[in-house]
Amino acid sequence: MKLSSAKAMLAAAQAEAERLGVTVCISILDAAAWPVAFIRMDGAPLGVIDVANKKARTAVLFHMNSADFAKIGHPSGEAYTLENTNGGLTSFGGGLVLKTSEGTVIGSIGVSGACTEDDIAIAHIAANTLLA
Amino acid sequence: MKLSSAKAMLAAAQAEAERLGVTVCISILDAAAWPVAFIRMDGAPLGVIDVANKKARTAVLFHMNSADFAKIGHPSGEAYTLENTNGGLTSFGGGLVLKTSEGTVIGSIGVSGACTEDDIAIAHIAANTLLA
Amino acid sequence: MKLSSAKAMLAAAQAEAERLGVTVCISILDAAAWPVAFIRMDGAPLGVIDVANKKARTAVLFHMNSADFAKIGHPSGEAYTLENTNGGLTSFGGGLVLKTSEGTVIGSIGVSGACTEDDIAIAHIAANTLLA
Amino acid sequence: MKLSSAKAMLAAAQAEAERLGVTVCISILDAAAWPVAFIRMDGAPLGVIDVANKKARTAVLFHMNSADFAKIGHPSGEAYTLENTNGGLTSFGGGLVLKTSEGTVIGSIGVSGACTEDDIAIAHIAANTLLA
Repeated sequence: MKLSSAKAMLAAAQAEAERLGVTVCISILDAAAWPVAFIRMDGAPLGVIDVANKKARTAVLFHMNSADFAKIGHPSGEAYTLENTNGGLTSFGGGLVLKTSEGTVIGSIGVSGACTEDDIAIAHIAANTLLA
Repeated sequence: MKLSSAKAMLAAAQAEAERLGVTVCISILDAAAWPVAFIRMDGAPLGVIDVANKKARTAVLFHMNSADFAKIGHPSGEAYTLENTNGGLTSFGGGLVLKTSEGTVIGSIGVSGACTEDDIAIAHIAANTLLA
Repeated sequence: MKLSSAKAMLAAAQAEAERLGVTVCISILDAAAWPVAFIRMDGAPLGVIDVANKKARTAVLFHMNSADFAKIGHPSGEAYTLENTNGGLTSFGGGLVLKTSEGTVIGSIGVSGACTEDDIAIAHIAANTLLA
Repeated sequence: MKLSSAKAMLAAAQAEAERLGVTVCISILDAAAWPVAFIRMDGAPLGVIDVANKKARTAVLFHMNSADFAKIGHPSGEAYTLENTNGGLTSFGGGLVLKTSEGTVIGSIGVSGACTEDDIAIAHIAANTLLA
């Protein structure tokens, strides 16, 4: 994950959040779950910082979006307690695994601070900048 | 748990994983839950490392396979939140407690990275090398 | 600490690092030591991420630059082991406390990845954008 | 870091430790500090497990051998407290950063359990298998 790509994602995510009138934290990790870039928009609750990080961490560590992870790491899913591994993971949407057009995992993005539906939408708009 | 026994288990587990066409992490602990040996097969998602460790940890700390632990350490089980003790445990299959023919616990093995059914099968094949 | 101010600091710091031909991580915290923004330049060693964070954390938690903290939080200083508090702090330069013109602490910046002298210079150039 | 390379290193390290009549733990990490393989020889003290891991972690996170790291992360070095970052690092020998012939970091090895001189020698013999 190049910093230039991460910055383009941050800019797109922040612009969309402003358009929606919400304040979010945005965390971008590389393919090995190390931080590349992060921003917290003015007014986002402090607890949201770690949520954005954990959404991104969940996505890249298991190569799946956090909304999909939620289906298996849930008491009624096939791998209940999976969310207790790796320092605690997030079983709801807003974290996306990012891949090249060939399918290689290059990192992840986590968005948190709005409703889950908006967090997911913002993350997708950010991720789309990688395709340009 | 002798290192030579652990290495024989790793070799058998890796061979079976390759035969099944899956990539897994394999963690072997001694009777006091300390690491003896570990391998990560090329391509396994990074999140799986901790899952393999926690499966093995769950098995040896409670002297039961993690699939059995899942029945009690679950919101609908008799000891809900047991899975939150000891730094977080795993309530799904792939961790086996290992015993001598006399029933003495000598350690555990945890396998993760394939579907749970395959993880369990690989762990059993590895454990069988202790009987030879 | 406004996000807009933090982003201006990141841009100035990155530009100066590129001018010097070094790769750094830059961490910006608010007055309560919570993250506002972070970037890792391509090629910076992974260990530097936490160093940048801890430099910024040291500066804002004690209202002093980390180079000054180094004089007291050192085996030969007057408050040896102060560096072991707060989850571990850094007793070398590159973290600056940031204040308004009236002297109110508004946050901190931590830079790491180059030699300490360059880290400090980059941090000062970033901090100067707050005066504009 | 391929598992096959890591296993060749483990075998060489264990053989050399046996030749020297010492018992060690050997930890091999990838370029992003994630575990690839680990063994503990029979009889190694339990505290050594984490030492081997931290030596390897120190080497790969800062792209330098832990013996060199010791010179800067020491009370008399230029970056005292650097060893307090990243969850605690090791300022003595036995951790080697591993690179390709072109200089790209591919991971690290940490050896602990013997005297530091022997730990370093064992690590070098293991690392040499990468050149074959």
